[in-house]
Amino acid sequence: MNAEIIAIGSELLTPFRQDTNSLYLTEKLNQLGVEVIFKTIVGDSREHLTGAASLALLRTDIVIFIGGLGPTEDDLTREAVADALQLELRRDPEIVASLERRFAARRYKMTANNSKQADVIAGATVLANANGSAPGQWLTGKYEDKEKIIILLPGPPHELAALFEEQCIDRLRAKLPAQSIATRVLKIAMIAESQCDARIAPIYKRYPDVQTTILAGAGEIQVHLQTRGASLEVAQKRVDQLVEELEEELDEFVYSDNGDSLEQIVSYYLQMRNSTVAAAESCTGGLLAERLTSISGSSRYFLGGAVVYSNEVKTKFAGVPAELIEKHGAVSREVAMALAEGIRERCGATFGIGITGVAGPTGGSVEKPVGLVFHALAGERGTEVVQRNFPGDRQRVRWFATTQALDMVRRKLM
Amino acid sequence: MNAEIIAIGSELLTPFRQDTNSLYLTEKLNQLGVEVIFKTIVGDSREHLTGAASLALLRTDIVIFIGGLGPTEDDLTREAVADALQLELRRDPEIVASLERRFAARRYKMTANNSKQADVIAGATVLANANGSAPGQWLTGKYEDKEKIIILLPGPPHELAALFEEQCIDRLRAKLPAQSIATRVLKIAMIAESQCDARIAPIYKRYPDVQTTILAGAGEIQVHLQTRGASLEVAQKRVDQLVEELEEELDEFVYSDNGDSLEQIVSYYLQMRNSTVAAAESCTGGLLAERLTSISGSSRYFLGGAVVYSNEVKTKFAGVPAELIEKHGAVSREVAMALAEGIRERCGATFGIGITGVAGPTGGSVEKPVGLVFHALAGERGTEVVQRNFPGDRQRVRWFATTQALDMVRRKLM
Repeated sequence: MNAEIIAIGSELLTPFRQDTNSLYLTEKLNQLGVEVIFKTIVGDSREHLTGAASLALLRTDIVIFIGGLGPTEDDLTREAVADALQLELRRDPEIVASLERRFAARRYKMTANNSKQADVIAGATVLANANGSAPGQWLTGKYEDKEKIIILLPGPPHELAALFEEQCIDRLRAKLPAQSIATRVLKIAMIAESQCDARIAPIYKRYPDVQTTILAGAGEIQVHLQTRGASLEVAQKRVDQLVEELEEELDEFVYSDNGDSLEQIVSYYLQMRNSTVAAAESCTGGLLAERLTSISGSSRYFLGGAVVYSNEVKTKFAGVPAELIEKHGAVSREVAMALAEGIRERCGATFGIGITGVAGPTGGSVEKPVGLVFHALAGERGTEVVQRNFPGDRQRVRWFATTQALDMVRRKLM
Repeated sequence: MNAEIIAIGSELLTPFRQDTNSLYLTEKLNQLGVEVIFKTIVGDSREHLTGAASLALLRTDIVIFIGGLGPTEDDLTREAVADALQLELRRDPEIVASLERRFAARRYKMTANNSKQADVIAGATVLANANGSAPGQWLTGKYEDKEKIIILLPGPPHELAALFEEQCIDRLRAKLPAQSIATRVLKIAMIAESQCDARIAPIYKRYPDVQTTILAGAGEIQVHLQTRGASLEVAQKRVDQLVEELEEELDEFVYSDNGDSLEQIVSYYLQMRNSTVAAAESCTGGLLAERLTSISGSSRYFLGGAVVYSNEVKTKFAGVPAELIEKHGAVSREVAMALAEGIRERCGATFGIGITGVAGPTGGSVEKPVGLVFHALAGERGTEVVQRNFPGDRQRVRWFATTQALDMVRRKLM
């Protein structure tokens, strides 16, 4: 079966806002074995929406409408879908009563316009919304002689997700051919996309039944795998088998096979090893500390950091000798090592990280071009340094460099 | 005139990728006075794409196709649009020659599939693509007796933008009724959305001819204004007049009326006043330093920062007395002040910023709940502190807190 998602709201047709609910719904639908073949974004116009609904009903099996279920004049999804289906809207007294109770509980008097949220398309099942006032609707039936499933969902993401998970997934599964979908995701750090693909393509090509999607970011590659089977066991076994082969090939480049972020993995390792970390950053300007502390509970292992932009501060906070900076330049292997060792000692941490480089767009030279970064990791048994030349703009270079540093900690503790 | 944007590519129908080109195009089209009334996302299927094209031609004046112009079998936009228009594709020998030159310059031999990029819909104008191999196409004509404009653009954002700006905007303007659009954006910091709207709604409602869009983020509100007029002068004067009234009402809450970011504004002020800044952050974990140093050239005014997660590091890097922390707790007005004053002194900066708070989700208490943050700004003439209770998750609290701190610097230098 296939589906169309229709996101409704004039704000989604401005330069400022974008539908994101469809990404969530697509993931859930794919897991059920349903492919999304169209997405339509339409404004708060009854005519446009009715047209979009009619067309979607002609071209797809499942049509999901997002938004336009509120109490205002602009909320026209119920009316438009009823028009498209040539069905009546009936005001449901139970929903009216529940809306009135909802308002009374907040000591508000319900205004008349709210009642329209109780209008139900003839034959539809009401999907109660625990997190908001507008209920959803579920409807099945024939359109132009073909079986269709029609779902109306509220626009706020947390309302939509709760309602879809609790009230739509089982209903959909009952309508779909018996099959099971298994998914896995591998996350891989600090390997070029082309190099990664060259290594794994010969493997995943031997699994044509597993859908393989490769996404590349700055310093990170994600491999999403999905397959169908007669049972979940069969499907899971198949995708696990591919994961095993890929992990064997990529070995230590793989940092996660269960969806965890690199920050989270580093967090686990540091806690497992009773280790702590401190960082002295120049060109990354605090981004490494920010990523390390983005994990709740990071105070257990992150002791502190210094953002050492000026040379004086490099000396003051990380004890880098002024002569060393003068001799080798602030962007150098030696200064990266001194930053890592200095911050480790001053914070009394198991590991110290030092980063210095040229984030750009200015400050580069022939000898030390934009994108050149030195990363040092100091531990009890010495200091290692990795030199890299990252491509891209300031933001991308900074992201690459912090990913490299996090990956060095991961590899050290692996 | 109105428009539909059709974004093409099966990857745009996965949970992982989203069309973003349409946001850029919508902004440009709105500036020309064209409203986008539909967006459609369709996969690499000739049948689906032809259907979507036919429908768009029926319901809108301008149809813009994004993507699907490359050399692979999946690139079917040219074929599908020609099908929908019932026009032929003709291979343009000039484009073939130019593709061959492009490959030769890179010392590659052009493979045969690349030639399909030279297929031009009968009657279309070729839009040369300086940044990629696939040219765009521009076509006008009647469809079901109505004048239509059809534009095919390549998917990579930088190719699309260059091609649209250089080769489509003037062509579109020539086809559109003579009118001029003026836009402005006001950016406002650290005021609640409801409070902001209560103050400005009475003003902008007196300008029904100006389209007002209010967007709220964590600590920041943007007011986008747009109006049309017989000439650019007339339109600009009208929107400028509203901006003046809004700025008078919101006064020092407005930090920018030309699109500049808060980080950029703080950068200008610091440079104008020959001032420098240093930061000692606890709960924001380096995000403030990261935002300050996201601006190229920030080394001129940002001396350094300390991420002081543990109490020992608060003492070591910012000289906060251990007794002070013990007496008032790490999250306190007193410790925020000591952080700001300590980091100012140690870095020799004009201003020192200290932030301490509870970012959550753990670590909160009845007395010091999640979201409580103290922000201190130390200068030559003393230290000021702002206490806030921010709503939202860890990420949102951290963003709020750093926006508050940046705004304190801005107000001090204003």
